[in-house]
Amino acid sequence: MNIDSLITKPTLLLDTQKTLRNIERMIAKATHSGVVFRPHFKTHQSAEIGEWFRKRGVNAITVSSIDMARYFADHGWRDITIAFPVNLRQLPEINQLAKEIKLNLLIESMPVAEQIVSGLTHPVNIWLKIDVGYQRTGLFWQDYEGITAVAITIAHAHNLNLVGLLTHAGHSYSAGSREKVIEVYETSVQRLQAGQITLRDRGIETAVSIGDTPTCSLVDTFEGVDEIRPGNFVFYDIMQAQIGACSLDDISVAVACPVIAKHPERGQIIIYGGAVHFSKEYLRRGNGAPCYGHLARLTQNGWEALPDTSHITSLSQEHGIVQVEPYLQDLIQIGDYLLVLPIHSCLTANLLKRYLTLEGEWIEMMK
Amino acid sequence: MNIDSLITKPTLLLDTQKTLRNIERMIAKATHSGVVFRPHFKTHQSAEIGEWFRKRGVNAITVSSIDMARYFADHGWRDITIAFPVNLRQLPEINQLAKEIKLNLLIESMPVAEQIVSGLTHPVNIWLKIDVGYQRTGLFWQDYEGITAVAITIAHAHNLNLVGLLTHAGHSYSAGSREKVIEVYETSVQRLQAGQITLRDRGIETAVSIGDTPTCSLVDTFEGVDEIRPGNFVFYDIMQAQIGACSLDDISVAVACPVIAKHPERGQIIIYGGAVHFSKEYLRRGNGAPCYGHLARLTQNGWEALPDTSHITSLSQEHGIVQVEPYLQDLIQIGDYLLVLPIHSCLTANLLKRYLTLEGEWIEMMK
Repeated sequence: MNIDSLITKPTLLLDTQKTLRNIERMIAKATHSGVVFRPHFKTHQSAEIGEWFRKRGVNAITVSSIDMARYFADHGWRDITIAFPVNLRQLPEINQLAKEIKLNLLIESMPVAEQIVSGLTHPVNIWLKIDVGYQRTGLFWQDYEGITAVAITIAHAHNLNLVGLLTHAGHSYSAGSREKVIEVYETSVQRLQAGQITLRDRGIETAVSIGDTPTCSLVDTFEGVDEIRPGNFVFYDIMQAQIGACSLDDISVAVACPVIAKHPERGQIIIYGGAVHFSKEYLRRGNGAPCYGHLARLTQNGWEALPDTSHITSLSQEHGIVQVEPYLQDLIQIGDYLLVLPIHSCLTANLLKRYLTLEGEWIEMMK
Repeated sequence: MNIDSLITKPTLLLDTQKTLRNIERMIAKATHSGVVFRPHFKTHQSAEIGEWFRKRGVNAITVSSIDMARYFADHGWRDITIAFPVNLRQLPEINQLAKEIKLNLLIESMPVAEQIVSGLTHPVNIWLKIDVGYQRTGLFWQDYEGITAVAITIAHAHNLNLVGLLTHAGHSYSAGSREKVIEVYETSVQRLQAGQITLRDRGIETAVSIGDTPTCSLVDTFEGVDEIRPGNFVFYDIMQAQIGACSLDDISVAVACPVIAKHPERGQIIIYGGAVHFSKEYLRRGNGAPCYGHLARLTQNGWEALPDTSHITSLSQEHGIVQVEPYLQDLIQIGDYLLVLPIHSCLTANLLKRYLTLEGEWIEMMK
């Protein structure tokens, strides 16, 4: 099917084959290492794409909000981890979910542990969130006293089942090289294991769960962990390619943006595609200038990335300004569309709210 | 009504009184200058807030997309300017709108003028988009030959009615001071008038329309223009306050974000409120560090801004990291919520999709 006529405004294109390849590669790696594969669904946020995982044997998932847990529970998922510290203001919604499914929550402090113990009406599994160096949330990995105290409180609660120690090593994103990302992985695992040993000395056995896409993509085998929770790998994006976690060819989403103006005198093409489609995530180019997306061109079977000399230099609410090579300026006319590989596919998907496959099918996501 | 129980997750609070004050101030200024007030509705995107304008005599509006024009046409608006270059891929939707309402479109090039002439099935009004220095879209103001050629093409078309020259002086955002913003306004008007005179010499009379919130807020009387189209002024935000276009007290939206963790050892509080609620818009602080939002505190009748020493230092998908003064660290507990004044209210409203007034009423917006 020719999808051209379906692209009337900024449209998130999905290459199904690349997406399935990304999914299968990560499943194979998890299987090879004998770890539980609990993919994070915050990237695609789609029940239909979720089924692609389920058909390949995935039954446990990760989400980033209670609303997202609700959406996937309503679509038949029965084992969900909300990888976000418990939001005490949503206890009724948590209780409702805990009644229906195997719900796994994150706790990172004593006050929340205590309030959860008294506020829950149904049993849940608990992961202790550990900070292995990212400094966002979590009990600091060397705070053995704090980890032990919260673990004991949870272990003694009748409605909480302590399953393990969990981290998100988000500092892998700024590690700078493949070797440094692997180093982040190795120190993360060592730091979680230090907590594991501390708790074992108190008679508490715990599993270990790690999460970020850079380490899960770059590490070959997952020694010493029980579960992995990557999310972005399903689509990847320019940020992951820059980190080295994927090749440009692995990026399985692109935004088709109508061309609304040409300004060859400035070497620019203006597209319908702005901050309300891409968010304002950017990377810095070698010269320090921000880049909000790379271009790609359609091929027989999908698309391929263009050299990064053609890229989005700025975004306003609905407009994108694209610096292009002179040959593209000649080739592209107003009324055509350009393909843009997003800097951050999670934020782009969250804004565009549905996918168009290269076969011309619309895939809906959580509203 | 106490709205506390309604705030379970990131929630966009709206101070109705401040919003009405912002609206009335701009209406009074437009009336005083005798210009048409055609507010841009891309900021609030809400039929209900639109009624607040209509009750005060506003009948003509601006929007930033064809979908937004559709939404407001369906809510009774009969005179709409789509302040975005014509997207030729949506001609059927444009024709349907042109059949129903007085539709005003922007053209900035001959190819689009020609395609519009042949593709339209109903008459529309046309504004020539002029670039007075922002360098995003528009015929460059000194390109008198180009302006004349496109104007003549439009003037000769049976289904197009050329009404005037329109600009968005977006470079007012980076002008740097009140005086520089006023200078941007003055040169913008002069540059539009140069085009006006050129066309008058060819027997074509045109009106002049300007648009950005900084100039519309800072200029006292609108000499030499026929229409103003500001949008952001309805709520304002930290960016406008930094420009000097408003005071912090004029900002009429704030995001209530549940507190999910406290890290006094780093001087931080972690909130449920991330890039999917605020976008990734930021400003740089004096020391060069990015700031993604300022804090405010609840008062008897609404909120007031806190000193900017307490602010969001980073955002991930759902989390915000807030650097806070020690007294706030003591005052605020997990399970409370923090109020955040957004950097860019248009993008924040676009993500949060509805408002909660301080009186406890939900206001819906375009989905």
